[in-house]
Amino acid sequence: MARPLEGLGLDLASLAAAYAGGTTPADVVDEVFARIEACGDPGIFISLADRAALRAAAEALGATPDGRALWGVPVAVKDNIDVAGLETTAACPAFAYRAAEDAVAVSRLKAAGALIVGKTNLDQFATGLVGLRTPYPVPLNAVDPSLVPGGSSSGSAVAVAKGLVAFALGTDTAGSGRVPAGLNNIVGLKPTVGAIPTKGVVPACKSLDCVSVFALSVDDAYAAFSAMAGFEPSDPFSRDVRTAPVGLAPPKFRVGVPTPQTRSFGGDPAAEAAYEATLADVAALGGEIVELDFEPFFAVAGLLYSGPFVAERQEAIRGFIETNADDIHPVTRQIIEGARRFDAGHAFGGMYELAAMRRALSGPLGSVDCLLVPTYPRPRTVAEVSAHPVGLNSEFGAYTNFVNLMDLCALAVPGRPRPDGLPAGVTLIGAAGADARLAAIGERLHAMGETPLGALGLPAPAAPDRAPAPAPDETAIVVVGAHLSGMALNGELTRLGGRFLRAIDAAPCYRLYALPGKVARPGLVRVAEGAGAAIATEIWALPSANVGPFIAGVPAPLGFGTLRLADGSTALGFLAEAIATDGAEDITSFGGWRAYQRKRAAA
Amino acid sequence: MARPLEGLGLDLASLAAAYAGGTTPADVVDEVFARIEACGDPGIFISLADRAALRAAAEALGATPDGRALWGVPVAVKDNIDVAGLETTAACPAFAYRAAEDAVAVSRLKAAGALIVGKTNLDQFATGLVGLRTPYPVPLNAVDPSLVPGGSSSGSAVAVAKGLVAFALGTDTAGSGRVPAGLNNIVGLKPTVGAIPTKGVVPACKSLDCVSVFALSVDDAYAAFSAMAGFEPSDPFSRDVRTAPVGLAPPKFRVGVPTPQTRSFGGDPAAEAAYEATLADVAALGGEIVELDFEPFFAVAGLLYSGPFVAERQEAIRGFIETNADDIHPVTRQIIEGARRFDAGHAFGGMYELAAMRRALSGPLGSVDCLLVPTYPRPRTVAEVSAHPVGLNSEFGAYTNFVNLMDLCALAVPGRPRPDGLPAGVTLIGAAGADARLAAIGERLHAMGETPLGALGLPAPAAPDRAPAPAPDETAIVVVGAHLSGMALNGELTRLGGRFLRAIDAAPCYRLYALPGKVARPGLVRVAEGAGAAIATEIWALPSANVGPFIAGVPAPLGFGTLRLADGSTALGFLAEAIATDGAEDITSFGGWRAYQRKRAAA
Repeated sequence: MARPLEGLGLDLASLAAAYAGGTTPADVVDEVFARIEACGDPGIFISLADRAALRAAAEALGATPDGRALWGVPVAVKDNIDVAGLETTAACPAFAYRAAEDAVAVSRLKAAGALIVGKTNLDQFATGLVGLRTPYPVPLNAVDPSLVPGGSSSGSAVAVAKGLVAFALGTDTAGSGRVPAGLNNIVGLKPTVGAIPTKGVVPACKSLDCVSVFALSVDDAYAAFSAMAGFEPSDPFSRDVRTAPVGLAPPKFRVGVPTPQTRSFGGDPAAEAAYEATLADVAALGGEIVELDFEPFFAVAGLLYSGPFVAERQEAIRGFIETNADDIHPVTRQIIEGARRFDAGHAFGGMYELAAMRRALSGPLGSVDCLLVPTYPRPRTVAEVSAHPVGLNSEFGAYTNFVNLMDLCALAVPGRPRPDGLPAGVTLIGAAGADARLAAIGERLHAMGETPLGALGLPAPAAPDRAPAPAPDETAIVVVGAHLSGMALNGELTRLGGRFLRAIDAAPCYRLYALPGKVARPGLVRVAEGAGAAIATEIWALPSANVGPFIAGVPAPLGFGTLRLADGSTALGFLAEAIATDGAEDITSFGGWRAYQRKRAAA
Repeated sequence: MARPLEGLGLDLASLAAAYAGGTTPADVVDEVFARIEACGDPGIFISLADRAALRAAAEALGATPDGRALWGVPVAVKDNIDVAGLETTAACPAFAYRAAEDAVAVSRLKAAGALIVGKTNLDQFATGLVGLRTPYPVPLNAVDPSLVPGGSSSGSAVAVAKGLVAFALGTDTAGSGRVPAGLNNIVGLKPTVGAIPTKGVVPACKSLDCVSVFALSVDDAYAAFSAMAGFEPSDPFSRDVRTAPVGLAPPKFRVGVPTPQTRSFGGDPAAEAAYEATLADVAALGGEIVELDFEPFFAVAGLLYSGPFVAERQEAIRGFIETNADDIHPVTRQIIEGARRFDAGHAFGGMYELAAMRRALSGPLGSVDCLLVPTYPRPRTVAEVSAHPVGLNSEFGAYTNFVNLMDLCALAVPGRPRPDGLPAGVTLIGAAGADARLAAIGERLHAMGETPLGALGLPAPAAPDRAPAPAPDETAIVVVGAHLSGMALNGELTRLGGRFLRAIDAAPCYRLYALPGKVARPGLVRVAEGAGAAIATEIWALPSANVGPFIAGVPAPLGFGTLRLADGSTALGFLAEAIATDGAEDITSFGGWRAYQRKRAAA
């Protein structure tokens, strides 16, 4: 039977276009199941949703999009994350249980309209970066089946790279959300630790685990992240991390990269060449390259498996490993049982070491806006990794292991391609909360990289047109008078670090007055709906810490309040006390202070 | 030989007066050494500074004060804190080493002009709350020598209570900076974890240890704290905690206290009566008593000695305990060796438990401005504790053990006296960074308590006249509605570091409205001179860096502008857009939002 959606891209934009054209979520469910069957790789999913039930859920969404961000979007979920009604195996059949409730992340996806297609394969207990440590068939790498798929989120990455779902959830403790993205030419978003609640996830290292997203574009990954992020009081590791809108990449930024002496490509010149080509893209984007000694970062990474943090993995399955040690994958068991050599004092000692290392690295990290590293030194084949299961696994983690221990966020994107067509990814790394900033740079790098998407042969997506928005640590301020660009008091804004965002009229519910006094000043006063007119304003972004000093310098009768703007948005801005307009000239008809001043100057 | 300074109080004010009258620091050094000798208690100090060297240091300060906060102030230092040139024993002679450098806290004291007199006795390795676990003579309790002096900072507390020094440094992990203060009728300031660097302190639990201050008054303790606090990059556990000036206690505040069911006084009715008398003082100060179930706090405390955190104590002396176990006090050894039953996984498990407990308690803690607890259930004699060395030690920690694990700050002050003259202290507990807020309340409670100071028989100091002014890095904000002290949104101010300055009416050129809407909110609108009335407001000081975040959260039609106040001054504050008063109830005649809400509640 012909499949009408056979060629449909499952990225969010293509899906939205299809839905606008009359496709229904049930059609998409049918197509997804057809693709999974056609793909013929039994290693990707450990279990699938019941097809009839998922079709029913799709039909329950209605026939037309209802405005929810993920309406009708098919998603795969790594099999260490609970989906109510499905088994959670963590790739260990003896450990499996049927989940009674959705993980918080999954329930938020469902609330946003997503459809959960199935549970994907992984390195058992999310311990590994290769994808081979599973009793199930190993998923085939989407770019080159001789390569390992990467792990631990192997199935999720391959499912996205093969176009089986729109995006997929992974988890990331040591790099499990980034290495498989790099090895399958897709995007891997590893958010700030705690930004997405981990309640309902089988822990690897509970203090470090993150839910991550695999997608075809940064834009899609960020949409999924935004749907799942947010403080969850019932999850002790959840944090209140702001999901700022992705803005424009700043025109200039500083990018930390390893010094040549601390770069490692496992002796693969093509990997090195691809990385250097991406660095040239960074420079073209306005990035200033700052070389940093990466040895201290690698030392942090040593705490994760060679140090006491491996005991978090032991603690996560303490009861199970006591009774079922033989049911555990031999490599996984060897690693987790390595925790036995550490006592409780060692665990605290490891935390002291980590605290000291974090402190020592705060200087280098503070000197740049982000880091840019290869996602892994070089791709490796299944045969190579099977011969050296621990050593080459460690090699994969060189640029990923330190990230969660340092409380950083990261975004893996395909970089410039290698001449031999093997996957070559880069990862941006930023401070906690910098997720949006990484996305703004990452989507541009991805677009420049020109690497075909996953196994689909499609070009990298163009970076979207972004609305200028304040950064997470900035506050938008609407100015209407002498603080407008080029006018007398504009320097008060720029001296406090203000930057121009955009010009826009206020909503037509204000009147503008020229206030009496020695210094000419405008006063904006809210009036009844329809009794005002459009007044020209400018929106500036001011570092939030400087809003206090800025407004403290503004005298009565001027004040600050929330202004409504012509596009329906609101922002903090200048308002005047109504009393001050007694005897003031109503200059609303000029449409703004600049026009009024111009006419006065001409008069 | 007659001692001209024999009757001199060593509190900072008395010292300053003496110095203004011609006394020199060398005179004070002589007097301090004479007092130590006259006091005849060999248990207080483990070692003293070389008298000639200290005299020389005193002479090097010059003959007249140079403006430094601690110029010529004699200080004792607990013997687990390094003072260059003196031995650090941690009350374990086999562990002793001669310190090459000052601890950061000590070097800051010296930089502020302080003179370090000697090193004081302690429960070995700061493990204990009783003061008996030392191979040196036990210091005598300053109030009643049959009582334990309290620990672990026994010598420091007694030295201050006996007037031997102006103030003394302790350390506090489980309560060592509070219990001895309570048992000797003096003030114990346990700052926010990390506010004073711990570099140069022998660790007890490195992640929790605090340097603390014993003094005769809150004012003196806070001066010492201010001299030592501040971020130290070379100390991984140092944090950038703001030392705000101590302001006035707010007129209304919410105080969490244990429910009667979760109060324990060890069967001592006099202790209970004293605590209840202090609660009456709190109410008289404007504190609203909120009863909280303290069982969850006690459960947190269980992690410290009964749980894996005891392994921090093991890790602190890992090498030493392996080679010198027999040199350790038998009780201390028993406790520290209790860590052997915990493996590294247990340590992480303990941290998970703590994270969950912290999260669960964030609700109750967020509902109050501070907690007020007895400093300990009841005083105990040396004979009683010797008979039950672990059980009664635990009893002392009931109200202190949870504090550092929960990342809270605390201030122990003498409360209302017991009829039998035994010491009865209370401890205020607040969120990290609330040190100044606790001090503002604590100094008033101390003044009301009328307990004689230490062993000196002097009255409790009057609370200083505090100028209600913002610090240079603060902005004054006038609040008129739910941000008033004790009202629903006041926490938005205190969470951002706001502190009460004063209550004052606005100038009579405003009218107050109850704005329509789901949430009751007042709107203050400027009107013509004479057309308004006096409206009650409060002025709060907010760190300027937090003004932006604060006002960014305030929705239209509320805004900020410059308000005129009854005394002719002006400050930034809440105003409403005049348009919003269409159809709003004019409540000007109530004179303020609090009075209006009260009448509404009564109606």
